[in-house]
Amino acid sequence: MTNLVYPGAQHTRFSHALGAMHLMQMAVQTLENKGVEITAEEGRANMAAMLLHDIGHGPFSHVLESSIVEGVSHEEISFLLMKGMNEQLGGDLTPTLDVFSGKCKPFLHQLISSQLDTDRMDYLKRDSFFTGVTEGNIANERIIKMLNIANGELVVEAKGIYSVEKFLIARRLMYWQVYMHKTVVAAERMLIRILKRAKTLAMQGEDIFASPALKFFLYNKVNASDFATEEAIRQFTMLDDNDIMTSIKAWMSASDKVLSHLSTAFINRELFHIELSRQPFAPHRLQMVRDAINKKMGIPMELMDYYLLSGQLSSKTYTVGNDRINIMFSPTYICDISEASDIFNIQALGNIDRRFYLCYPKEVDMEM
Amino acid sequence: MTNLVYPGAQHTRFSHALGAMHLMQMAVQTLENKGVEITAEEGRANMAAMLLHDIGHGPFSHVLESSIVEGVSHEEISFLLMKGMNEQLGGDLTPTLDVFSGKCKPFLHQLISSQLDTDRMDYLKRDSFFTGVTEGNIANERIIKMLNIANGELVVEAKGIYSVEKFLIARRLMYWQVYMHKTVVAAERMLIRILKRAKTLAMQGEDIFASPALKFFLYNKVNASDFATEEAIRQFTMLDDNDIMTSIKAWMSASDKVLSHLSTAFINRELFHIELSRQPFAPHRLQMVRDAINKKMGIPMELMDYYLLSGQLSSKTYTVGNDRINIMFSPTYICDISEASDIFNIQALGNIDRRFYLCYPKEVDMEM
Amino acid sequence: MTNLVYPGAQHTRFSHALGAMHLMQMAVQTLENKGVEITAEEGRANMAAMLLHDIGHGPFSHVLESSIVEGVSHEEISFLLMKGMNEQLGGDLTPTLDVFSGKCKPFLHQLISSQLDTDRMDYLKRDSFFTGVTEGNIANERIIKMLNIANGELVVEAKGIYSVEKFLIARRLMYWQVYMHKTVVAAERMLIRILKRAKTLAMQGEDIFASPALKFFLYNKVNASDFATEEAIRQFTMLDDNDIMTSIKAWMSASDKVLSHLSTAFINRELFHIELSRQPFAPHRLQMVRDAINKKMGIPMELMDYYLLSGQLSSKTYTVGNDRINIMFSPTYICDISEASDIFNIQALGNIDRRFYLCYPKEVDMEM
Amino acid sequence: MTNLVYPGAQHTRFSHALGAMHLMQMAVQTLENKGVEITAEEGRANMAAMLLHDIGHGPFSHVLESSIVEGVSHEEISFLLMKGMNEQLGGDLTPTLDVFSGKCKPFLHQLISSQLDTDRMDYLKRDSFFTGVTEGNIANERIIKMLNIANGELVVEAKGIYSVEKFLIARRLMYWQVYMHKTVVAAERMLIRILKRAKTLAMQGEDIFASPALKFFLYNKVNASDFATEEAIRQFTMLDDNDIMTSIKAWMSASDKVLSHLSTAFINRELFHIELSRQPFAPHRLQMVRDAINKKMGIPMELMDYYLLSGQLSSKTYTVGNDRINIMFSPTYICDISEASDIFNIQALGNIDRRFYLCYPKEVDMEM
Repeated sequence: MTNLVYPGAQHTRFSHALGAMHLMQMAVQTLENKGVEITAEEGRANMAAMLLHDIGHGPFSHVLESSIVEGVSHEEISFLLMKGMNEQLGGDLTPTLDVFSGKCKPFLHQLISSQLDTDRMDYLKRDSFFTGVTEGNIANERIIKMLNIANGELVVEAKGIYSVEKFLIARRLMYWQVYMHKTVVAAERMLIRILKRAKTLAMQGEDIFASPALKFFLYNKVNASDFATEEAIRQFTMLDDNDIMTSIKAWMSASDKVLSHLSTAFINRELFHIELSRQPFAPHRLQMVRDAINKKMGIPMELMDYYLLSGQLSSKTYTVGNDRINIMFSPTYICDISEASDIFNIQALGNIDRRFYLCYPKEVDMEM
Repeated sequence: MTNLVYPGAQHTRFSHALGAMHLMQMAVQTLENKGVEITAEEGRANMAAMLLHDIGHGPFSHVLESSIVEGVSHEEISFLLMKGMNEQLGGDLTPTLDVFSGKCKPFLHQLISSQLDTDRMDYLKRDSFFTGVTEGNIANERIIKMLNIANGELVVEAKGIYSVEKFLIARRLMYWQVYMHKTVVAAERMLIRILKRAKTLAMQGEDIFASPALKFFLYNKVNASDFATEEAIRQFTMLDDNDIMTSIKAWMSASDKVLSHLSTAFINRELFHIELSRQPFAPHRLQMVRDAINKKMGIPMELMDYYLLSGQLSSKTYTVGNDRINIMFSPTYICDISEASDIFNIQALGNIDRRFYLCYPKEVDMEM
Repeated sequence: MTNLVYPGAQHTRFSHALGAMHLMQMAVQTLENKGVEITAEEGRANMAAMLLHDIGHGPFSHVLESSIVEGVSHEEISFLLMKGMNEQLGGDLTPTLDVFSGKCKPFLHQLISSQLDTDRMDYLKRDSFFTGVTEGNIANERIIKMLNIANGELVVEAKGIYSVEKFLIARRLMYWQVYMHKTVVAAERMLIRILKRAKTLAMQGEDIFASPALKFFLYNKVNASDFATEEAIRQFTMLDDNDIMTSIKAWMSASDKVLSHLSTAFINRELFHIELSRQPFAPHRLQMVRDAINKKMGIPMELMDYYLLSGQLSSKTYTVGNDRINIMFSPTYICDISEASDIFNIQALGNIDRRFYLCYPKEVDMEM
Repeated sequence: MTNLVYPGAQHTRFSHALGAMHLMQMAVQTLENKGVEITAEEGRANMAAMLLHDIGHGPFSHVLESSIVEGVSHEEISFLLMKGMNEQLGGDLTPTLDVFSGKCKPFLHQLISSQLDTDRMDYLKRDSFFTGVTEGNIANERIIKMLNIANGELVVEAKGIYSVEKFLIARRLMYWQVYMHKTVVAAERMLIRILKRAKTLAMQGEDIFASPALKFFLYNKVNASDFATEEAIRQFTMLDDNDIMTSIKAWMSASDKVLSHLSTAFINRELFHIELSRQPFAPHRLQMVRDAINKKMGIPMELMDYYLLSGQLSSKTYTVGNDRINIMFSPTYICDISEASDIFNIQALGNIDRRFYLCYPKEVDMEM
């Protein structure tokens, strides 16, 4: 929903997958030029891994995981899809699956999944370009040129240290300025409620419009084990943003008041008001808002979860732990970026940066 | 469908409308700074005009006009929509409607609709940015700074002449390299056939899936006069690309073979093969392709129009006529760009540049 | 002197030489990838050719050729310098010298010197970048990717035709908007007069300040044959813009009035007024200006050539002739860009675009 | 000397002064739009301040201050020059001088001189552009749009916090990657020795070539009090990079061996070898290098200071103190960026980041 704030941000996961694969190719070539041994099969496996790494994301991704699908992560779905493709391809994807599960040289796995993987490098630069938030722009190509291997692990050569610092700062900036922009949060939280309402009605046997693929997920309880069926996988791959948007437009004239109300507000960009705070909202404050919604809008208390949306957002700039960004000063002197950098507060870097949100209809004016 | 070739090209008409409005604001300010009298109402009217100028475009625009809607142009629909808004706004849009119909100072109309209007200036630069075809990049801001008025008409000051030359060349380049890229043409022509097939089936009373808004246009004959009804307008504004894509995905499993076949090919990017030529394709060549389609694929001749797609594309770099780009060398010496420029062939500039296309399933290998 | 108009334009011939060499490397690789046979020696020779192609340019280049050095072009000096280097290098530059003189596969010579050589491709893009005249930006990399060889000659594949059109237009735009900008012309013409005056004084035996290298060229008559001496070459390679600027600053307090006057005006950016016209200036007009300079400023008629500067500027967008830009539609159908393009006027393209200038001190206000 | 590493970095202080003035204009307009009262005179004073802020820099700036001029900073010279101009302008520059000395509203002074002034904002972005080190690119315009005033002091609104973090990181990155690049340090240190040697010779009465302005500074002892004379000021304003480079080229054939040796090495880019270390170099190590220089090159010990160059470089990312970057969360809640930011280590931010260098002729191979 970032496009509600940055209208240029209409880019797709497909272009991200192409871009991440391209960066992987650059990374592999760079390492080979430095004498690291990477077989042709390993190179291909890693490139395929980037092309496919997001394949299990449904429409609006995290929204979907929080509404109509239960207890199954996009990673699990990706894995199921790749396994299916692997069978069709007679095992050609086995090395790719192995990279995901870590059955490979450690640095090959780190290239596809770590705090400095080609996934992050691509999406930061791409999102910066399409949103116009130029500050998120990072020096992908320079970081990749600084990659090397020490003791089998991925490291960044010391003169790339400032680029890595800037990468971490850019990621943090994009997180709060783009991904978790308050308008985006409000819209996504409304979208979750819309889909939850549709699912609830469907499970109660109500007849509501949906595209065939969406219908499958509304009228069936779908959890992790269900995804193992061919039908669920087939329907899932047919489902995309178009189904969701088309259905929500149709729901504007649904007979259910909650569904039609939320859908209309969403489509007409009459988004809920949102407050952000570094402290949790006090229970009596939440109650006051609930009361106001009930009184001003006539919403009964049992439907309140559709109108008062609250929760927390959090991000870490850098996780100090096993999956480190290693800086190599010399073949024998390697240390974690949080130690190598003069300016970062090693403690602070690893802290979780939290914000609490409170979101409710604009009709209720409750800002204090 | 340009995104099939340039994956970054996912940008929307909405962002184009915002951009064109922004350029209009710059143009109005530039002219005011040069002493041209523009009232606040006129300035607002022109900005609103750019915000709304494309409002009558349906999903995939020209595709729609060639398939499920008959004999009504997007300009007519825009006009109807604006008229409706004007009533709701108590006449606030009257000055805007006047600019469109030319009841205003001539240059105000030229700013919104001419060969150097802010519409073209925005979309060329925008499409260049999002496709990555950097050569289409034009110097919008410089051209706007060179605008002036002479005898009530829009002119470009003489030192902007090279920028105008480059604008015309960039437009020509974008036309053939992006808008009429052969893959894009093939996909759009297929899309037209898919929608035509769906409409034919619907008019025969077959039951096919469609979103509510699309259903309206499939199951009703909708021509220019029908659009005057409130229902048609309401349904039209609910219709967007999501409806089309969602429905085509559903049609992949339609019982009608033509519809399912074309839809599947379209969604799976198994696009028809396309040939381009500066000469029309000879009738016997078309017949050979038809025969091959019939023989190899078993398509009966009466369905041939869905499988053999041919026609012509054409563009003019510049139209020599009433709507001219005027270059002002001095307040008393003004002439048309086609005369002012030393390098353009005045005759050639006005020529229509034509290409003929022939498009058919890849299963039939008929390239000669 | 372009930096007087575009302050960012401080870039050097050295960076241009590096850039042109880089593009040559790309061109050679592209052709090799298309199966064109280029030996390692040929590739190196062509790269060295681009690195060295401008080595014979003196400070302010064309200015110098018109003032203190007589009848010897920078091409001749380049050749002499390279010959000298070749001796030092034991013949390693022989293949490079052969490419310049055309003793090589024709396309290798065309890559270093033709209407679409890597020299032009580099300087257009570079000058566009540093001046900020973004319209001069060309798609170097795309044009290079479209290069191919047919019958041993360099051609551009047909789908590069719009890029070539844009390249020609961009060159034309840069020519008049940057290289021949009126302020630049005035400054360069003044610079020529300053150096001519210094040379005249030096030849008369006057003692004027100069750096050692500049002194050599002021106090000696230096023509083509003189350059064959080791001393002239040595002094020439020691001479650069610094010598000229340092000396002109010193000349601000020269005892000769003409030299000090012109030098002071030049350094303090009190440039002469300049008029441009597509028609030659009438003799009586020139006489009126001369009279005014004589009367208002007390300049005697015999010094008039230092104060009334007139002449013509000319450019051709494209030269139709032996050195063509060939567009390849198919291996057997190749034609000149002037025929291949639909929009260029073949006659007009080859025309010389002429402007006449008239330049005189601002103290004399004679604009009509 | 940055252009030795980044050949595009030929840009001038003049363009920086124009750019900083432009940013000041934006800053003033932004604050006015937010209701801050700034008189027309104050606005003009601040713009003039940015135009003139670097006027006292001599050629190669810090190099000069360390060699031929003694004990007078460029700030003092700037002040003298502006005072002179102010007299010529009949006091028009008095408000500008007041801004420098702080006799003005505090925020007006902060805009021209603080850790977030328009000086730094311009040079970081400009140097990033011309070097091609894109990571130094900062969001000038966004930071300026976030400026505000609280209690008379300049603050940045809270949502600009990530941009300020990025600004500090970018400055740090540019410092070590560009300004203090080891090749740049080596070249500048050599340049200082060359000028020191020339000065020493001149003070001993040797006759060496120099441009008139440089001659003045070589043959006179010039310290702070001397600058008060009109002659010193006049000569200083005539001195620029051209004088230095022209003279060094002439010194290649000086009779003094040290001067000719260093000058030749400098001009021919045979720069000294440089080692960087976070620890000081041990005295015995320095002695070993000295011995080697003496032995291998025959340099007597009393000239060793021209051949063994050592010292330290240091930078602070942010100075915690009086001149703070204040972040405004609300009109009543304002705090220092080092506290406001979650990730910076307040202690580390203020630390001085030190590197020690050791620089000596390449002929002596002493790396350990």
